[in-house]
Amino acid sequence: MKLSNRINNMKFSPIRKLSPYAEDARSKGLRVLGLNIGQPDIETPPQFFDALGSYDSKVLKYSESRGETVLIDSFIKYYKDFDVEFNRKDMIITNGGSEGLHFALYATCNPDDEVIVPEPFYTNYSSFTDIAGCKVKPLTTYGEDGFHLPGKEKFEEIITEKTRAILISNPSNPTGAVYTREEIEMLAQLCLEHDLFLISDEVYREFVYDGEKAYSPLKIEEIQQHVILIDSISKRYSACGARIGLIASKNEEIINSVMKMAQARLCVPTLEQIAAASLYATPQSYFDEVKEEYQARRDVLFEGVSAIEGVQVKKPAGAFYMMIRLPIKSAENFCKWMLTDFSYKDTTLMMAPAEGFYFTEGLGVNEVRLSYCINIEDLKLGVEILELGLKEYKKTQE
Amino acid sequence: MKLSNRINNMKFSPIRKLSPYAEDARSKGLRVLGLNIGQPDIETPPQFFDALGSYDSKVLKYSESRGETVLIDSFIKYYKDFDVEFNRKDMIITNGGSEGLHFALYATCNPDDEVIVPEPFYTNYSSFTDIAGCKVKPLTTYGEDGFHLPGKEKFEEIITEKTRAILISNPSNPTGAVYTREEIEMLAQLCLEHDLFLISDEVYREFVYDGEKAYSPLKIEEIQQHVILIDSISKRYSACGARIGLIASKNEEIINSVMKMAQARLCVPTLEQIAAASLYATPQSYFDEVKEEYQARRDVLFEGVSAIEGVQVKKPAGAFYMMIRLPIKSAENFCKWMLTDFSYKDTTLMMAPAEGFYFTEGLGVNEVRLSYCINIEDLKLGVEILELGLKEYKKTQE
Repeated sequence: MKLSNRINNMKFSPIRKLSPYAEDARSKGLRVLGLNIGQPDIETPPQFFDALGSYDSKVLKYSESRGETVLIDSFIKYYKDFDVEFNRKDMIITNGGSEGLHFALYATCNPDDEVIVPEPFYTNYSSFTDIAGCKVKPLTTYGEDGFHLPGKEKFEEIITEKTRAILISNPSNPTGAVYTREEIEMLAQLCLEHDLFLISDEVYREFVYDGEKAYSPLKIEEIQQHVILIDSISKRYSACGARIGLIASKNEEIINSVMKMAQARLCVPTLEQIAAASLYATPQSYFDEVKEEYQARRDVLFEGVSAIEGVQVKKPAGAFYMMIRLPIKSAENFCKWMLTDFSYKDTTLMMAPAEGFYFTEGLGVNEVRLSYCINIEDLKLGVEILELGLKEYKKTQE
Repeated sequence: MKLSNRINNMKFSPIRKLSPYAEDARSKGLRVLGLNIGQPDIETPPQFFDALGSYDSKVLKYSESRGETVLIDSFIKYYKDFDVEFNRKDMIITNGGSEGLHFALYATCNPDDEVIVPEPFYTNYSSFTDIAGCKVKPLTTYGEDGFHLPGKEKFEEIITEKTRAILISNPSNPTGAVYTREEIEMLAQLCLEHDLFLISDEVYREFVYDGEKAYSPLKIEEIQQHVILIDSISKRYSACGARIGLIASKNEEIINSVMKMAQARLCVPTLEQIAAASLYATPQSYFDEVKEEYQARRDVLFEGVSAIEGVQVKKPAGAFYMMIRLPIKSAENFCKWMLTDFSYKDTTLMMAPAEGFYFTEGLGVNEVRLSYCINIEDLKLGVEILELGLKEYKKTQE
């Protein structure tokens, strides 16, 4: 039985690719520190679980395709606090940020149309473009520059008649880069001049350290018809398993069109929406504490890996990821070897080889993405294991 | 800003199309009987809500991309009771049956490939093929035949080199037809001879009346590599808002490939899965009572509409829908008129014009789909309103 080319061409998630080896390590009795995945260990605000019980019907009914009004209104309030005015008709609740991205790409791109994405990028962006049949045009960013964007002219070199959108994650997964106001204004200018959509994935908005804040294209009045916002409660409230996301735009035609896709999949789970709406009441102290905790983790991880011989890294400003370059040839082989052949204090490490985050062949082969979603003590142990593992691995390579 | 052709070509749901008129009617103080939508009024088994509280972590974590093992195992047990043996690796939990359909079409069809679908069909089938860029080849079935399938030669007339799959809903939404064992065997033969997938949407499996049972292609050993099952808990347990579905196949390549799409969207909501797993414990008496209730509703609706002058209808054997032909020119105009201009006892009716369920232009224009998801008393009132409305409407057409 022949399957479709598009499914054959799709890749498995590089983040979850090494899972079988981690399973094997666990079955040998080892502890596996998961530095590969963005699953926070922070507690979900308890009102989420309490609100599940507030559903007042004995029949678990379909929700509206647009989403539960109470949840949409809570997003409106959240954005009002962020000085952005949205109306109900500007928003559609999605199955996580993932579905929002999927909708945005389908609504803007025909097959073979092009989307410019700074690389390295969140690996599922290319899963979604593969499914949608549109093409990623990567624009490489570099660790040496803290993965900041190249100049406007670099974008213009790769814009063609087929280019429909620029897609960014800001703060960035996987690099932790937070784009400056100037960078966002440059993107806005590009979108205006070349009539492009700007798909802005801002799910890590709250995770910016050292007292800084992320700047959003939502703040630039002139390009509101171009901006498609992707948001999610997954990271903000440590509620990844709720799968509650948002697509929003002031461009009425976009949201009306996305509504057709939203109707086709009927709705997002009803109870999760009601529970998610309760999260708007989360006090500022929760975010302050969480941010403080992540900043401390970042610092521990950064200082730890910086001190390892041969490791190259710049301190990232946001999200909870760090891309580091290792003094080895193949990060994938090394990550696999760590799971199959190395442990220290009955513990080993799972990391995400960075090659899968680059679109351009041959880039990122000696880089890994580390997430700092685990506690400081374990992060310290992780750094120790990485250092010892690298030493040991190098011997096997001689 | 130019949107994609595929989004521009997609249609809004015909089931939800008249919603604004229903809203207007409600705002005038009228009660609107919803015969348009398959939202059962039956209570969800209470253990679903109880099980939500059994999640034992304070962090709402991602689930596995394949789904929670406890839920997969509950589907395995359900299918064992149905005399079908599945393993964990044969199944992936989906966001409702909708996502399963979406996955099945993407995995089997390239853009421009063809899928044969008996019409009238569930309108979102063409939403999904529109998004996937593949083509529906409709095979018309007729009310006079109880919407049963035409002979094998009719299928063979429209099979081309581009045909990749046959997609059925059995019991059928929107017709209520339940295909006979001979019909399913004929489809199996077609799939073997022409190397086609058989995408079998069996979400209404439990809703077959008069002591009959639905036959499934899962029972035919020789075609297991061809069958892709779509299932959902939405109707079976009156849990539409949970959005828990299933895609399953004995064809390992299919499920492995679908796994790539499942990984790209990360996972289905964690809590809904845990709660859904509890539903396997629903006692047989629940299904017996529900079936008895639906059968009684079908009988009331069927007898009622049969007695209306000029209405043509055959008694459907399953699901909870009925397609009826009305003695008017445009069902869409009539349905709209009922909401805007007619009421009886301060109540009016919302029906789904059937044109949207046909792919072939011009078919179904004087038909409506009625669902019988509301209680018998209201169904009786609904029939009365339909009869009076038709009389009144005919006067306006003279």
